[in-house]
Amino acid sequence: MQAAIMGYGTIGSGVAEVLEENREQIVKKVGEGIELKYILDIRDSIPEHNDILIHDFSLIENDPEIELVIETMGGIHPAYEYIMRLLEKGKHVVTSNKAVVDACGSKLIRTASEHQCNFYFEASVGGGIPVIRTIYHNYAGEKLTEITGILNGTTNYILTKMRESGAGFAETLREAQKLGYAEQDPSSDIDGFDTSRKTAILLSMASGNRCRHEDIYTEGIRDVSDIDIAYARKLSRNIRLLGSVQAVEEKYFAYVAPVLIARADPLYMVDGVFNGIRIVGNCLGTTMLYGMGAGKLPTASAVVSDIIAAARHKSHFQGIGWSEKMIEIEPMGSNAFRYLIRVEGMPDGMEQDIREYFLEDGSSWEPVLLDGRTDEFGIMTDVMFESDFHENRQEFEEKTGRRIFHFLRALG
Amino acid sequence: MQAAIMGYGTIGSGVAEVLEENREQIVKKVGEGIELKYILDIRDSIPEHNDILIHDFSLIENDPEIELVIETMGGIHPAYEYIMRLLEKGKHVVTSNKAVVDACGSKLIRTASEHQCNFYFEASVGGGIPVIRTIYHNYAGEKLTEITGILNGTTNYILTKMRESGAGFAETLREAQKLGYAEQDPSSDIDGFDTSRKTAILLSMASGNRCRHEDIYTEGIRDVSDIDIAYARKLSRNIRLLGSVQAVEEKYFAYVAPVLIARADPLYMVDGVFNGIRIVGNCLGTTMLYGMGAGKLPTASAVVSDIIAAARHKSHFQGIGWSEKMIEIEPMGSNAFRYLIRVEGMPDGMEQDIREYFLEDGSSWEPVLLDGRTDEFGIMTDVMFESDFHENRQEFEEKTGRRIFHFLRALG
Repeated sequence: MQAAIMGYGTIGSGVAEVLEENREQIVKKVGEGIELKYILDIRDSIPEHNDILIHDFSLIENDPEIELVIETMGGIHPAYEYIMRLLEKGKHVVTSNKAVVDACGSKLIRTASEHQCNFYFEASVGGGIPVIRTIYHNYAGEKLTEITGILNGTTNYILTKMRESGAGFAETLREAQKLGYAEQDPSSDIDGFDTSRKTAILLSMASGNRCRHEDIYTEGIRDVSDIDIAYARKLSRNIRLLGSVQAVEEKYFAYVAPVLIARADPLYMVDGVFNGIRIVGNCLGTTMLYGMGAGKLPTASAVVSDIIAAARHKSHFQGIGWSEKMIEIEPMGSNAFRYLIRVEGMPDGMEQDIREYFLEDGSSWEPVLLDGRTDEFGIMTDVMFESDFHENRQEFEEKTGRRIFHFLRALG
Repeated sequence: MQAAIMGYGTIGSGVAEVLEENREQIVKKVGEGIELKYILDIRDSIPEHNDILIHDFSLIENDPEIELVIETMGGIHPAYEYIMRLLEKGKHVVTSNKAVVDACGSKLIRTASEHQCNFYFEASVGGGIPVIRTIYHNYAGEKLTEITGILNGTTNYILTKMRESGAGFAETLREAQKLGYAEQDPSSDIDGFDTSRKTAILLSMASGNRCRHEDIYTEGIRDVSDIDIAYARKLSRNIRLLGSVQAVEEKYFAYVAPVLIARADPLYMVDGVFNGIRIVGNCLGTTMLYGMGAGKLPTASAVVSDIIAAARHKSHFQGIGWSEKMIEIEPMGSNAFRYLIRVEGMPDGMEQDIREYFLEDGSSWEPVLLDGRTDEFGIMTDVMFESDFHENRQEFEEKTGRRIFHFLRALG
C-alpha cells in the first residue's frame, strides 16, 4: 500500500520511524507493507528522505497509486482542505490533528463515508491510549454515562511537580518549559484549550453527534496555587486538570477544569506526563485506560494503528465517527460538584453560617487548617449544582463579611 | 439478527439483560436488533423465558435463521463440540468461556476462518476490560514486549482485604466465601489456574500463535501470609497475583505468581475485585487497562461487544485470534526478578554472606525489620534469574546455617 506523510514534524517523523522499525510486524498483520512514496513538508531538505520530499500537495492528490495519506501537519488550514480533497478522491486519511478533528470532523467523516474510504483519528485524543477505537468497538452496546480524563500531559506534569516540590505555578511552568515539557507559548495546554478539544472529540464519539468545544466550560490551571496544592495534600487528594462529559438521558454535560480527585478514583495515580481516561457505562461499570498521552513514538504508534485499520478496510467506510447533527451542552451551572472553599479567617464560630450555605445538617464539620496559616481555612462542601454554589458563595460573603479567597471543584 | 444463548447462568442471563436494557443503543449501532430465539439450558423452567427455553442443541444447530450463538455454559465439553458444529454451519459464536478458548481456541478460530464466520471471546480475559480487541486493533503495529495483569478478582479481593485487615489467608478466604467473592471450591482462583488460562490467551493474542497454559509456571496465593503482607507494607508495596508474559526477540517468558509491586507500577492501585492489565509496546511505552474483571453485567457487556462485532462482520471472518502453530515458553528459571527473602534471625553480621549470594557490592544494605519480630528479617535482593536465585538460596542456607523462611518475587 503506497502512502504519503503530510507534515514531517515530531509526529510525522515518528510515524516514519515506527513504520520502519515495526515493518515486519505490520506486514504480518495486514499482508503487505506500507510504502512511503512522498513526504510533503515546507522544509527544503530532510536529509534522510530527500528522495521522496515534495512541496506540492497536488502530486499526492493526483497520484492514483497513493491509497493512504498521513496528516501530521497540525492546525485547521490547510489540513482541512487537503484532507477533504483526498477523501473526495477515495484516499484514506489518518490524522493526529485534534484541531481539525474537533472543528471539521463530522464533515470529513461524512465525506469519507460518501467515498467509501476512511478518516481515522485515534492519535487525536490520549496519544497512545486506545480510546477512540475502544469506544467504537468495545463500548458500542453500552450507554456511556461518563467519560472523564486527564488528557494533557503538560498540565499533569506541572501539577505533579507542584505537589512534589511545593513550588508555585509560575516557577513550575518555567521549569517545565526549560525541560521541554511545556511550550514557550503554553496557553493551549495550561488554559485548557487542548483538553477542551479532546473532550469535545470524546463527547462526539460517545454521543454519535457533533458538538462544539467552544460550548464546553473551560478553565485551565493558571490559578492553581501552592496553597491549593497544600490543601489537596491535607485532604489526601490530587488536583488534576480534567476534561469530562456526562450523559443523563438525552442531556449532555461537560467541563474542563482543575478538580480535586480522591484516592479511590483510578485517575488519582495518573502522574507526570501520563494520561488516564475513566469511562463509565451503564452495564460495564468503571473502566480506565492509562498511558502516554503525548510524545513522538506513542502518538506515532496510535497513528500506525489507524494505518493498519485503513489497510484492513481498504474498500469500505468502517463507520467510526459521528453525525453532523449538533448536540447542545448544558450550561456549566447545571454540573454538580463538591467544592473546597478557602474561607478568610479562622473557623471558630463559622459553623452555622457555613452550614447555611454549603453543608447539610447531617454532614460533618471538618475545617482544614494548613500548618502555620491563620488567615484562612478550608471546608469541603456537600455536592451542589455549580449555579447554586456561586449564588451561595456570594450570599455567604455578603452575610458574613468573610471572603472566599478561592475554590476548587472536587469529585468523590 | 436471530440469536441463541447456550447456558443461562450468571453471564448468560446477564447477556439477555444487557441486550434488553440497551436494545435501542444496539439497534442504533448495528442497524438491527438482536432477537433471542432460543435459550438452551439444563433447567426445566426459566420463568421469564419459558417460551424460548429449549433442551435440545440440534434445534439451534439446524435452524437456518440463527446467525449468532452466545456460549456461556463454561467448561470444555460439550461447549467445544457445540461451538465447532455451529461454526461449521457458518454461525457466529461469541463466548465468555476461557477454558474452551484456552484449550481449543486455535482450532475454533481456524474453523471460523474456513467458514467465513467469527469466533469472538472478548469476555474470556479481564471481563469488562477491553483487552482482546485492543490488542487486535490498537496494538497491531506494535511489538508487544510485555503484558502483565491482575486477572482474577477473587484473589485480588483476598489480597486487598489481607492488607486492609492484617488477617491471615485462611480467615480472609472464609470471609470472601461468605460474601460470595470466592467459590466454595476456590482452587481455580486461588491456585492460579484461572489466571494461568487468561495469561495463555493473552500470550496467544500477542504472539499470534498457540501456547499451552500448562506450560506456564503457576503459583497461587495460598502461601501468602499476613507476615508477607506486613513486609509488603513496610516496603510500600502491594502483593498481587500477576499473570505475565514477555517477548524477547523470538523467545517467550511467562509466569503466574504473587509478586510484590512498587507504587510506581500502574497496577499498584488495582484494588479489590478490579482487574488491571499493563501492556508494554516497543513504541507505545506502557499502557494500562483497568476495570471490572468479573461480575454479571460487566462480563455480559463484553459479550455484547462481541455480538455487535459479529453483526458488523456478518459475512466474513475478521481475523481476531491466533494460528495453530505452538510456541514454546521458556522455563521459569529464565525469568528474572528481585526477591524479598525472609531470613532467619537478626541482620547483624549477615551483610557479607547476603551480599555474596543476593546483592552486588554497589547495592545498598537495607534490612527490613517487622515491629516486634526478632526471629527473622527481610532483604530485597538485586535482580536475579530465578534459577540462580534458587541455587544461591540453597547455598546460602548451607553456608550460613540460616534458613530462608519464605520468599516473594518483586518487580521494580
